[in-house]
Parts: sequence; C-alpha cells; structure tokens
Amino acid sequence: MTFKQKTSQPNQLTKTELDLPYGIEEKISQLFNSAKEVASVEEKIDVQFDTLTHDFLDAIYTNTDIDYASVIANFSDSNVPVEPSDFESYLEYLADNVIAHSVHTSSPRFIGHMTSALPYFVRPLAKLMTAMNQNAVKMETAKALSPYERQALAMMHRLIYNFSEHFYDRHVQNSQSTLGILVSGGTTANITALWCARNASLGPKDGFLGVEKEGLAVALNFYGYKGAVVIGSELMHYSFDKAADLMGIGTQGLIKIKSDRNNRVDIQALREAVADCRVQNKHIIAIVGVAGTTDSGGMDSLWQIAEIAREANVHFHVDAAWGGPLIFSEQHRYKLAGIERADSVTIDGHKQLYLPMGIGMVFLRDPKMAQAIEKNASYTMRKSSFDLGKRTLEGSRPAMALFLHAGLNLIGVKGYEFLIDEGIRKTQYMAARICAMSEFELLAQPDINILIYRYIPESLRERAAKKQLTETDNQLINQFNECLQKSQRQAGRTFISRTMKTTICAGKEVPIVALRAVIANPLTTEDDIEAVLNDQIQIALELSTSTSIEASDNVA
Amino acid sequence: MTFKQKTSQPNQLTKTELDLPYGIEEKISQLFNSAKEVASVEEKIDVQFDTLTHDFLDAIYTNTDIDYASVIANFSDSNVPVEPSDFESYLEYLADNVIAHSVHTSSPRFIGHMTSALPYFVRPLAKLMTAMNQNAVKMETAKALSPYERQALAMMHRLIYNFSEHFYDRHVQNSQSTLGILVSGGTTANITALWCARNASLGPKDGFLGVEKEGLAVALNFYGYKGAVVIGSELMHYSFDKAADLMGIGTQGLIKIKSDRNNRVDIQALREAVADCRVQNKHIIAIVGVAGTTDSGGMDSLWQIAEIAREANVHFHVDAAWGGPLIFSEQHRYKLAGIERADSVTIDGHKQLYLPMGIGMVFLRDPKMAQAIEKNASYTMRKSSFDLGKRTLEGSRPAMALFLHAGLNLIGVKGYEFLIDEGIRKTQYMAARICAMSEFELLAQPDINILIYRYIPESLRERAAKKQLTETDNQLINQFNECLQKSQRQAGRTFISRTMKTTICAGKEVPIVALRAVIANPLTTEDDIEAVLNDQIQIALELSTSTSIEASDNVA
Repeated sequence: MTFKQKTSQPNQLTKTELDLPYGIEEKISQLFNSAKEVASVEEKIDVQFDTLTHDFLDAIYTNTDIDYASVIANFSDSNVPVEPSDFESYLEYLADNVIAHSVHTSSPRFIGHMTSALPYFVRPLAKLMTAMNQNAVKMETAKALSPYERQALAMMHRLIYNFSEHFYDRHVQNSQSTLGILVSGGTTANITALWCARNASLGPKDGFLGVEKEGLAVALNFYGYKGAVVIGSELMHYSFDKAADLMGIGTQGLIKIKSDRNNRVDIQALREAVADCRVQNKHIIAIVGVAGTTDSGGMDSLWQIAEIAREANVHFHVDAAWGGPLIFSEQHRYKLAGIERADSVTIDGHKQLYLPMGIGMVFLRDPKMAQAIEKNASYTMRKSSFDLGKRTLEGSRPAMALFLHAGLNLIGVKGYEFLIDEGIRKTQYMAARICAMSEFELLAQPDINILIYRYIPESLRERAAKKQLTETDNQLINQFNECLQKSQRQAGRTFISRTMKTTICAGKEVPIVALRAVIANPLTTEDDIEAVLNDQIQIALELSTSTSIEASDNVA
Repeated sequence: MTFKQKTSQPNQLTKTELDLPYGIEEKISQLFNSAKEVASVEEKIDVQFDTLTHDFLDAIYTNTDIDYASVIANFSDSNVPVEPSDFESYLEYLADNVIAHSVHTSSPRFIGHMTSALPYFVRPLAKLMTAMNQNAVKMETAKALSPYERQALAMMHRLIYNFSEHFYDRHVQNSQSTLGILVSGGTTANITALWCARNASLGPKDGFLGVEKEGLAVALNFYGYKGAVVIGSELMHYSFDKAADLMGIGTQGLIKIKSDRNNRVDIQALREAVADCRVQNKHIIAIVGVAGTTDSGGMDSLWQIAEIAREANVHFHVDAAWGGPLIFSEQHRYKLAGIERADSVTIDGHKQLYLPMGIGMVFLRDPKMAQAIEKNASYTMRKSSFDLGKRTLEGSRPAMALFLHAGLNLIGVKGYEFLIDEGIRKTQYMAARICAMSEFELLAQPDINILIYRYIPESLRERAAKKQLTETDNQLINQFNECLQKSQRQAGRTFISRTMKTTICAGKEVPIVALRAVIANPLTTEDDIEAVLNDQIQIALELSTSTSIEASDNVA
C-alpha cells in the first residue's frame, strides 16, 4: 500500500456512499456512473477540494519547512494496490502528503520562478476540459474544438504579424494552412519550429526526397554541406540543446554567441558566426533570437537579428516563450520590434498569458511551412482532413485551447497590457530598492521583469562598492549566496531562485551566483517585495553568525 | 469580437458581481483575487459548469448533427477583444458554440476512437491540479510532486518488469536513476525511447563525443555505418514516422515489416530485415514491437521480437500505448509475454488507464539509460539536483502525475483487470454478432478490444459469402462503407471510425475500407453495441435507397 487507508471515525463521505461492500464490478461501475448518479458524491468532494485548494491558494508562505529528504521518504513504496482504495482515504492522503508540501506558486512572495497566481476562471475550465475529454488530434474527437483552437491561435498570430484581414480570412480555417501549433510547452514549440526550418531548408530537389524522408546525413551530402547548425545567444533556453541533439545536428551544432552585460546577444559576434559558417560550408538551419532569456529576461535586438537572417537567407526563429506577451503593451512592445519579421515564434501560455501549465505555441509566418513536417495515417489524419494532428509533433492531446481562447477573451488586450506593465513596473521598483540597500548588488539592469542580484556579506561591502573584489572574494560571495538561497527556500516564507552568471574580475571572467527574481504575479505588491528582501537579510544575518555557512540541505 | 456579449435579461451571475464598471486594474485584480474573495463567484460558476458538464456527460447521442462547415464558420474572427469580456457571456458562448457541438467521447455509443467515459474522480483532480499549478520540471516548483511522480512511475515499472524489492529500493527515489518519464502523450514517449536508444547506441568512444554532441552524420561516419534505421511492423503508429524524421534518420530509415492477417508483424520477415541491415552495414537503433496496433489492436509476438533483438544486440522498444494495461489482467496478460524483456516501453495513461488526455509514459529497463539524453542549465536543472526535467524531452509541464497516482490507487490492480477483461469480452460479443449478421463481414479476429469489419451491400452478399468478390466489387463496397461511416458520424446518434486495410483479391492486394470499433468504455453495454450496429444497418438502407451514395459531408 502506498498510503494508509483510513480506519476510523466520523467523516463527511461515508463508506456507504463511496465504498460499498460490493464486488469489483460494482466498485468500478460506481466510478464511471452517469454524471447525475454521482452528482451528490461529486458535490461533496468538490466542497472538500475547494476548502483544500482555497487554503492552498490563500497561503502567503511559499512552502512548509520540511526538508527534501523527508518529503522524498514518503514516496518509496512501488507496489500498486490490488484493491481499489476509497476516495476519502486517498483525499486525506493527498492533503497530508502532497498538497501540504507542494509549493505555493501562487503566493505573492514566491517570486523566483516563471509561475504566478492564475485567474480564477482556469479552475472551472480545467474541470470542464477534463469532463469533455476531447482529443484535439482529430476532428472526429474534437468537432467544435478544432476550429475553436485554430481561431485562438490565429488571434495570437495576428497580434504578432498583423497581416491583412484578407490574409486571415484565407487562412484561419483553411485546413491546408497552419498559422500556429498548440503544443504542451515551449520546449516542444522550439523543437517544432526548428524541425520545420530544417525540413523546409533541406527539402526535396532534383530527385532527392528531402531530409524528412532520406535523413540528415544524406541531405547534407546531397546539398554539399559540412554539417548543420543553429545559431543564437549563449543564453538560449536549454530546449535548444535538446532540439539540436534530437534533430541529429548534435549539441555542438548549436552555436552559442556571447551576450553583452545586458544579457542580449552580441550582434557583431552573431554576424561573424554566420559568415564563419558560410566559409566552413555549414548549413544554417535557423538563427534564433531570444525575447526574454530565462535566466535574466534579456531581450535580444530582434530587428538586427532579422536583418542578419534576411541577408543570409536563413530561417529566423524567435523564442518569446517568456517575453512574447509584451506584444500587448503599448509601452513595452518596442522591445519586441522585429518579431514580426520572424519565420517562427514560440510563446508559452502558461507563462505570461497566466494560463495553466501545458500550453506552448509556435506561430509560423508562412501558413504552408508546417507542411514540411506533415504526417498522415490511414486510421486517422487523412490527408484531406481538417485534423489538427497532421502537422504537430504530438499526437493525442487535451483541449488546452479552452484556456487560451478564454484568456484572450476574459483578460483581453487591455488586461494583458495591464499585467505586463505592472510586472515591469514592480521589477523596476525592486531594482531601485536593491540599489538603495547596501546588502545587495544589482547584477544587471532588467530589460523586463526578471531581475538578477546578489547579497554581499558585510565584510566585503566596502570592496564591492569600490569594485575591488578579488576572485577569492567572489568565491566567498558565491558560497554565501548559494547558501542563502537554499536556506530561504528551506524556511519556506519567501522564495527567490538562483542562476549562474559571469563577471570580469581583474581582467578575468569569473562565475557569479546570482539571485533571480521573476515578478509576474499580480498579487505581488511592493510590500511583498520588501518582505522578500528583508527575509533574505534576516537569513543572511543568521547565516553570518552561525559557525558554518553550509546549508542544512544539500540538494541542489 | 469573437462572440456576442450578452446584452439582456435576468441571469444568475449579475453584472455587478462579475463585471463591475471598474477600470482595467479592478477588473484584472478581481480575476486574480484571493481564493476566499472569489469563492462565492466561483461557486456559482461551478454550479453552471456542473449542469453543463453533467448534461454533456449523460448524453447518449454522440454529437449534434450540425455539419463540419457550419461549425467551422463560427470561428472565423481573428481579432483579440480589446476589453476583458465578462465571464457570464463567455460561458454562454462556450455552451452554445463549443460544448454543444463537442463530441460525446463518454457516450456508450461512441465506440470508434480510443476515448471513453472517465472515472468521476478525474474531474475534481483536474481542478486541484490547476489550482496548485505545480511545474513538474523542477523540485523548486514541485516539492512533493517530484517524488510522488517518481513513485507512480515506479509502480508502473514494477508491473512491467517486476524486478526485486532491492532494485526498487535502490532506484525509486534515486535522482541518478530514471525508471520512467512522464510526457504529454504516446508520441512523445515513443520519440523519447528512440532518442535514448539512438544516443546510447552511438555514444562517446575513443575521442568521439557521441551522437548527442557531434550529430548523426559524424556518428555514422565514426562508427562506419551506412545509415541508421528503426525496424518494426508496418502497423506501427505514425509517431514512429515523426520520430524517424525528427531524429534525422529520415522516414525511409523506418523499415516497415509486413504484418499477417491478424495484424501481427511477420516474425520471419522481421528477422530477415535485421539480417539485411547487417549486410548493408546499417545501424539498427531499435526494433519495435507493437502491443495493440492503433488500427486493429494487433498484438505482436513480443517474446519472439525480444529474441531477435537480443541476438542482434539491439534496443528493443515496445509501443504498448494502447495494449500495455493488459498487464493488469490475469486472463489476457499472456498477450504481452516478452514485454518484460523490452529496453523501453510506452504506455498511455489517457487510453486504457482511463485518465485524462495528456499522459504518456516511457519506462526504461536500465535506470541509467536516460542519462544519454540528460541536459542541464544553470538557472535550473543543476546536475546534482532531483529535478525531473533533466531527462525528458519536455520542459515545464503540469502535475499530471496526480491522475496516474490516483488511478493506480483508486482503481487498483483488480479494477483495471476488470476494465480490461470487460472490454475484451464485449469485443468478442460484438465480433460474434457481426459474424451472425449477413449485413456485415468481420475483417480480422480481434486480439484485444479493437474490431475491424465492414458492411456488405445486399446485392454483393452472396458473392462475399462465397469469397468471390472482384476488385470492382471491393471498390464499390469501399465507397459504400466510407459513405456509411461519414453519414453515421454526421447523424450523431452512434459512432464508429474507419481505417484502411488490404485484402487479397484474385491473387492481388486490394485496399479495403474498414469500420473500426474500439470497445473500452465501461458504460458501453451489449445493448449499445446492438444499437450501433442497427444504426449502421438503418443508415445503409437509407443510403441504398437514395440515388447517390455520396455523403453530404466531404470532410475526410
């Protein structure tokens, strides 16, 4: 058994209701009963769940202070129960073991990762989506959903590319066109974009059937290239490493260009790398621009990258998984200038569209491009069909379009603009506070709403202020910040993540442990930001006075 | 605007409650309000949603009879609303345009695709999952969830491999081990398995850094191979075409072996293909066994394929996306004999584990194998960490493990056994009925719970019975069955899908349109099966008497 069955006492859902002493047939039939028959049971469960979730959602603290090892110890049994367990016991088990020690990603003081409180409408929609159990892969299992999903993706496409009314009339519901592909996340979106780019750029020609059919080695040989590459900032998301590996170009084929101190790709170095690939006769599958680097929110100069890609006649992909929704903001949209010149764009719904996990999107400038990855099958996905699964990496998938469509309608352009503007405004507030506090050092001016900084122990503040820190000083500061971040996480009152950056120290590049704040949660106020910083100062003081600065918890 | 705002009349959620005449700040803040503050609004919405979903779930008919073109016409606008819409209007819009014309995948008479009614507990769990908004990619956003997911995957692993207690003690919660990977679907699971197989079999050696880093062309060159292939049945799921394309071996590198009339791969032909690749010096990345072909449920002889793979020292992958849960059945488990010898196994949760869409799984015999695809990043996924995202194709992803863990506990071994046994029993019933009815011809004896058959128009029944159908007869029958399937789908009372098979006609292979039933829904009774067949007979009669047999709806 993986959890203890409840043996005792009064409870809301009695044994008679949920776990009658029937045989297995009755027990299982009961689980699948008509909705109306189980309605009263479901209602009671809903009440219990709502209490659990509301308590969870209203928590200010970010986590319990239980350590990782103790949590992990709860989940060691690997036997599947033979008999069905009753729901009441399982719910209790969930509450005590899972919900209790889950992370309050909605807490206004959990500002370390790309999560946030979500609008309340996603909760009933999640239940609806699961109840309807549509399979978006195919029109026969997603009749209204298929065109509805296409519509939602077209709306996003239009925000990015803003083509003519005529263009959208022609393509929104044209089964031969693909304006966007809904996938489970940004990684799959990036892989899909590069997959399209690879197949389109090494397509059929003069009897060669294309990379899709004949494979990469034959394609490179046919076209006379010595290898294939993807070029972008060193701060590209690690999904590009996955893509390069998976697509057979190898991670060494992912050419990472240095970034400047604002975490934007060095345009000159990028230009040189492109020229270099030409000289070396390497096929450039795509040049990638990053609109919001994961570690620090840096916004590449998309317009300039677009120019380089155009000159080189290479596919231009923009990873705007995080930064894409700046498109909604009149004030900040200019940071995305050039995105409309991209051949493909990744945006995540579960990031700054404030939707649940599991919504990645890739948008394509050319509605025919996805034909380069099209696959058909006789039992489904017939060539002439309207089925969405024909041109997507994934097969069966849920109706996540419900969230996207609802978000666009219930939050609207103005709503998203407000959310984006507020996040950036509060980030600037936090940056100003950090600059004003002697305890901290700001590591880069934030482009958008991700902030990197570090704590400077008191004994080193003077040297830090004078920019006289040695490499050894930096090592000590690194150790301290790593320890600080782990202790803060462990205490569970507030949360900031950490990442690695580099700095120049006596003419030499040295690694820097950075604290990383992501300010996207609309519930986060200036007071919460103060609370997070003060919590760090408090923890740092405690650490400084303890004999060792090692964190109690060594899980990375 | 994509939908009409409600302008009128009495309603349950008044404008004052949901759409106060505030500015944008107030409107948006309201959406993100503390759970307790919106509790009363949420409750009212829940009631409306519950009515909608219960009506949806209790429907016997499979769909409205609206044609595809009319549905599609509803979703042509691609403008994002500027102002936030009110939830009440949107809910009404959803009900009228999306829910009303969605497919009743839970209907006992919708027996054409791999969907089913689901146990009621998935609905509250969906809401809980969305409320908790954990990100399974990383321990810092999924503290209890990460080990909980590992536990659920270990349970499944144990069902397949049944290694020692000691093995599981060592690996279940060991961050260096990967017993299983939870992904969004079977396609991603199959891709992941082949990705592992490719990287492990073309790994680092003598200064070569491995296919992961140096790419496929260099790897093949280093190892001295002329191309790389994956070998399996011609009935492999089309996700293998995607995988072959994506991984750079090309779809021509996917060697498809003929299947026998029971839709199982021809073992002798498979053996020859392996030998042939050796002669041609082609690297075999994996041999694939299919446990439940998508189109007809054929179960390959896994034990024999395992033997071939062992002799050839090649990775053996089993695609048990559909058939994997037979492992629960004492009566039918033997059909999976040999699965325990697989290096990797795909099973889908959203198929025969009766869980919501979005749950694919791949299990690995060797807990170290996934290290071949490991990727790290400084802002997350540190090498020493417990983070689940290190060894998975996807990045951020939802807490779908909740459904898997709950399913295993609340349905249990006995419950799943009952579900599997019942599905197969009812399929045998349907096969017997088809054999007994002169209107139909059974096209293959079902291995499990997928059935293929066709309708024979009256004028051809005698020739069909005598096995004297000509190629032209078959063409006519094909046309009739395609038309029948489309008309049945359009009428919306019952549903059967269709696929293509081949038959031998006068010594020649001719294509056959097959009707395809999938009997997995526990709500489906013998009476429902009769109703589906009678509906087809009724529609066929109507079609026969109409002047043309063209379906009114030409969408494939």
